[in-house]
Amino acid sequence: MRRVGALIFPGFELLDLFGPLEMFGLLKDDFNLQLVAETSDPIASNQQVRANPDTTIKDSVHFDVMFIPGGMGTRGEVNNTALLDWIRTTSDSAEYVLSVCTGSLLLAGAGVLDGRRATTNKAAYTKIAGQYPKVDWVKQARWVEDGKFITSSGVSAGMDMALGAIALMHDRETAKKVATWSEYDWHMDKDWDPFAQVHGLV
Amino acid sequence: MRRVGALIFPGFELLDLFGPLEMFGLLKDDFNLQLVAETSDPIASNQQVRANPDTTIKDSVHFDVMFIPGGMGTRGEVNNTALLDWIRTTSDSAEYVLSVCTGSLLLAGAGVLDGRRATTNKAAYTKIAGQYPKVDWVKQARWVEDGKFITSSGVSAGMDMALGAIALMHDRETAKKVATWSEYDWHMDKDWDPFAQVHGLV
Repeated sequence: MRRVGALIFPGFELLDLFGPLEMFGLLKDDFNLQLVAETSDPIASNQQVRANPDTTIKDSVHFDVMFIPGGMGTRGEVNNTALLDWIRTTSDSAEYVLSVCTGSLLLAGAGVLDGRRATTNKAAYTKIAGQYPKVDWVKQARWVEDGKFITSSGVSAGMDMALGAIALMHDRETAKKVATWSEYDWHMDKDWDPFAQVHGLV
Repeated sequence: MRRVGALIFPGFELLDLFGPLEMFGLLKDDFNLQLVAETSDPIASNQQVRANPDTTIKDSVHFDVMFIPGGMGTRGEVNNTALLDWIRTTSDSAEYVLSVCTGSLLLAGAGVLDGRRATTNKAAYTKIAGQYPKVDWVKQARWVEDGKFITSSGVSAGMDMALGAIALMHDRETAKKVATWSEYDWHMDKDWDPFAQVHGLV
């Protein structure tokens, strides 16, 4: 059983978070999911609808998997020292660190991606890559795996990445079963990324 | 601006709900999203993580779009008279009625799908079709449109359907922009359904 700590903050992107959590959550015997926030109040997503944290960053819960969604709200957290400290500490002791979309902005801000290959939302790619040059940014990838760090492109890419992560933590057959159960057409190739071209990156 | 009322109940399926709400929610000038529940307490999904209702069924808010996700929790609500009454009343005055997965079980239970073409999660198809014979169930379809009723197959099909609904309410170009922005590979053909075969229905 792995404990997954999924960070939420005001303006998190709904599908960044709940797409992957759907996938992990279907493996009830293997993953325990918790939403983590700075405080215990409900948090409004970019789409306004609100999620409820299960724990706060002060509770210092150990997570086997740390998960950071993206969204417009990441911009408001890049200088949040308490949050970046939590990310750094939790990343150090986690077995896996996952991010979707601009969630990698927060990982980069915490310094944990320095020297690592990683990707992000392709619309924001150029700006983020410029702000965090110590990260080895990959411009065309659905998701990137570098050691324990698994970072994906924008929004829907999180679901492909989550299944890829399940394949790593368990096996490909298990990931395929989850995809089938959720009637999801899984893009299994982590290098498939037509959106890099759409945004003029390649 | 259309007001979307998305019902949540204990054991709702996470991606049934939040996949479509991601899509509608990206059109901030066109859709106002509200989560509706029987009470105002946080509601746990099938994946345990909790969402927060914005309004309750007693508040009798008028919704232009009524949205019903599915999930294991639908089984627990099929005899919930207050909920079925709310579904019936809200359906009558809504411009569009949408469901994902076994959400159509609740629509069928409220009687609003009688004589209508509709679909549901393919794993539960046979059982549900047997329980509600007045509905004209379609066994192979990603989603079905019959007048104002738009019902989809399981879980991930909701995202394809939501984009289809956006194409109906606005236009296909708008739906494609939402798909591109969310880096989503939209299956635009509502008859595409390989999962019907997986579950032995065709």
